[in-house]
Amino acid sequence: MRHLMSPLDFTVEELDNLMDLAQDIEKNPKKYAHACDGKKLATLFFEPSTRTRLSHEAAMLNLGGSVLGFSSADSSSATKGETVADTIRMISCYADICAMRHPKEGAALVASEHSRIPVINAGDGGHQHPTQTLTDLLTIRSLKGHLDNITIGLCGDLKFGRTVHSLIHALVRYKNVKFILISPEELRVPSYIRNDVLDKEHAQYEEVVRLEDALPKLDILYMTRVQKERFFNEEDYIRMKDFYVLDAQKMELAPKDMYVLHPLPRVNEIAVEVDDDPRAAYFAQAQYGVYIRMALILTLLEIEV
Amino acid sequence: MRHLMSPLDFTVEELDNLMDLAQDIEKNPKKYAHACDGKKLATLFFEPSTRTRLSHEAAMLNLGGSVLGFSSADSSSATKGETVADTIRMISCYADICAMRHPKEGAALVASEHSRIPVINAGDGGHQHPTQTLTDLLTIRSLKGHLDNITIGLCGDLKFGRTVHSLIHALVRYKNVKFILISPEELRVPSYIRNDVLDKEHAQYEEVVRLEDALPKLDILYMTRVQKERFFNEEDYIRMKDFYVLDAQKMELAPKDMYVLHPLPRVNEIAVEVDDDPRAAYFAQAQYGVYIRMALILTLLEIEV
Amino acid sequence: MRHLMSPLDFTVEELDNLMDLAQDIEKNPKKYAHACDGKKLATLFFEPSTRTRLSHEAAMLNLGGSVLGFSSADSSSATKGETVADTIRMISCYADICAMRHPKEGAALVASEHSRIPVINAGDGGHQHPTQTLTDLLTIRSLKGHLDNITIGLCGDLKFGRTVHSLIHALVRYKNVKFILISPEELRVPSYIRNDVLDKEHAQYEEVVRLEDALPKLDILYMTRVQKERFFNEEDYIRMKDFYVLDAQKMELAPKDMYVLHPLPRVNEIAVEVDDDPRAAYFAQAQYGVYIRMALILTLLEIEV
Repeated sequence: MRHLMSPLDFTVEELDNLMDLAQDIEKNPKKYAHACDGKKLATLFFEPSTRTRLSHEAAMLNLGGSVLGFSSADSSSATKGETVADTIRMISCYADICAMRHPKEGAALVASEHSRIPVINAGDGGHQHPTQTLTDLLTIRSLKGHLDNITIGLCGDLKFGRTVHSLIHALVRYKNVKFILISPEELRVPSYIRNDVLDKEHAQYEEVVRLEDALPKLDILYMTRVQKERFFNEEDYIRMKDFYVLDAQKMELAPKDMYVLHPLPRVNEIAVEVDDDPRAAYFAQAQYGVYIRMALILTLLEIEV
Repeated sequence: MRHLMSPLDFTVEELDNLMDLAQDIEKNPKKYAHACDGKKLATLFFEPSTRTRLSHEAAMLNLGGSVLGFSSADSSSATKGETVADTIRMISCYADICAMRHPKEGAALVASEHSRIPVINAGDGGHQHPTQTLTDLLTIRSLKGHLDNITIGLCGDLKFGRTVHSLIHALVRYKNVKFILISPEELRVPSYIRNDVLDKEHAQYEEVVRLEDALPKLDILYMTRVQKERFFNEEDYIRMKDFYVLDAQKMELAPKDMYVLHPLPRVNEIAVEVDDDPRAAYFAQAQYGVYIRMALILTLLEIEV
Repeated sequence: MRHLMSPLDFTVEELDNLMDLAQDIEKNPKKYAHACDGKKLATLFFEPSTRTRLSHEAAMLNLGGSVLGFSSADSSSATKGETVADTIRMISCYADICAMRHPKEGAALVASEHSRIPVINAGDGGHQHPTQTLTDLLTIRSLKGHLDNITIGLCGDLKFGRTVHSLIHALVRYKNVKFILISPEELRVPSYIRNDVLDKEHAQYEEVVRLEDALPKLDILYMTRVQKERFFNEEDYIRMKDFYVLDAQKMELAPKDMYVLHPLPRVNEIAVEVDDDPRAAYFAQAQYGVYIRMALILTLLEIEV
């Protein structure tokens, strides 16, 4: 039995198969409408994350399955002192597959070690959020046609941004991917990403401070939110939060075939006026998130259609 | 694509069709049991409202569809600062239709402007609650056989009562409807309803202070709750809250074919002893609420059975 | 129409039929996969209980039905002052059967008196939790092959433990069941259980203080949690909480065919090392909990397959 703990759990070839399946689902949704009849997904969200929870639920419902679970720790047995290991053993009696979100790093891994059903890590603290990375990969591949030979700009909070770190990890495995890391000095990519991932894999990358300097060179711009809670003081937050706001004026510097991605929710790092630009792909990305999760559920349940 | 923001969105003729459909559903539930197979309803409740949420969910499940969503803002992305516009764009990727409840007036309208799926306004602050009004209309039409030529008493908090205002708006479009407005002086219907709706449409109405004076003349008595939070001070609340309590003794003054409606939940404005009176129709009303929402979902999704 | 308020609502013969059905479901799950097509279960949880709620939901989903409801009072109309009687009348319009959990004793009984649909008491304060008892009975019967002629040890907080009291009530109806009551002096079985149940039914029982003294004699060991909130002070809790911890060393004293049950969640009253012992049956018990609830739903809805 297989779980999804990290996007690196899959080889590049396995990822290709997963994305091929997702694209077939996109083209022929009816073919898959009953693939999970009688199957149940448990959504175990020890902290709220509407987007992630609902995208998993939509994926299972699209496959004809059903859903049960909880959306916050308040309404779970965790408050009674139950361990994650015991919770997953119980859930193994109630469902066929589960998606778990937990504030503690490694929680999903512990769960997978005691589970009789496949566990999808739907985010464990600041550690991993693999279905977001799978979504990002599928979005890029669908829009550009390939994952090799792209120049991707990663913009915003690159120090704490979990999705950015995961995406770098995933993309260094493809050929000739160039990274442009766009952030304030204070929020640069940490050295364990720079040294142990980018340098180790001989990836091409450069670090820039101004979004304007990167834009003309990009195939993909991956924007991220600057989370207020990451800052030590209000002053720093106010000073930096608008440095990296993408607006219509900045978009004029970008190539005609550059796409803008964002893991969402955005606050104000992408101006609303950009939404109507055909290059804005962040809502399409949410749709790809459903297709890849459908493919993932089928793959982990070993269901062939 | 069509949304439901206000009960006035539908013409009188469209409402007739909607209610005809609801009554056919009541008679032939099995005919509609798979009408929404594979369709998903998102219930986006930024504030809790069990009754409204569950009636929409029951409606979708009765049609063979499925449901996903959230029941309070705590478990939604709203706490991360996401706008309603962005939320609905995301939900458009996950569901085929949605019902939204929001504490702010106009929230559903904003959502509908950015949505790729039909939006049902399931209450936006003190503003609108159109599915309640549709429920009320169907209940009256089902019980009395028609919406023209009725005398309806509206009792309780007529100043702040959103459901009462909506119902007046809806009923003035029918012929020869007479309104008897029953409230304490302090909680009379506001002038923008009296002048801009009742007077403008040349509706017949009278205002009375005592429920007993109105009862003998009524075809329908619409009771409402006096919400404690509407009062400026505790003293006023205590003085007035029991003025308009319907009990078995008062029911003796009412015609044999007068029906009592209430949007529920009631607190003590209808004595429990009235529940066994065959004229008590407030629980039947909850059932009609499911049928009209089934009809509404089918209509907005343009599904013909 | 029939409800489930207490495990004693069923005669011994009816319980046999219910457990026969549960065991047939275990053997032939596909036969029952569409037994509740089009039926809806409402889960009305006025206080959170993930395990109990999800086991009911899993049961209904396994039968092809669907689920709606709420998982805590926060997201229910109870906060608006609605009575349980009114809530269940509303829910009767939305669902075909319901499971209710409520912090107040007798709440489910009140609900059943006003309901148009079968009500399952899923726990009412410290009073009853009948589906747990049905689960326990099915687990014992499945593992041992019979409910007569067994020696069962009940260990932990026997003073406040609702599940233990219910299980004693249920088991005294079988022939030649011997009880060994294992607890600290302060948490002994209350006299109304000792006198009015055990003595009255002429049941054989003994009370012991040390778990080690009981273990060699047992067919079944039923462990329970010592809930911190039951103690008057922290000191008493700390002194006693580890007296009755089952570990691998103690398990060596037990017969090879003795099974360990626990209503879960456990905290530390069973050491994790016991989980791998083939006699550890507490997670299997969770699975039996789904089968018995499937059988219960079918029985209360009078659906024959």
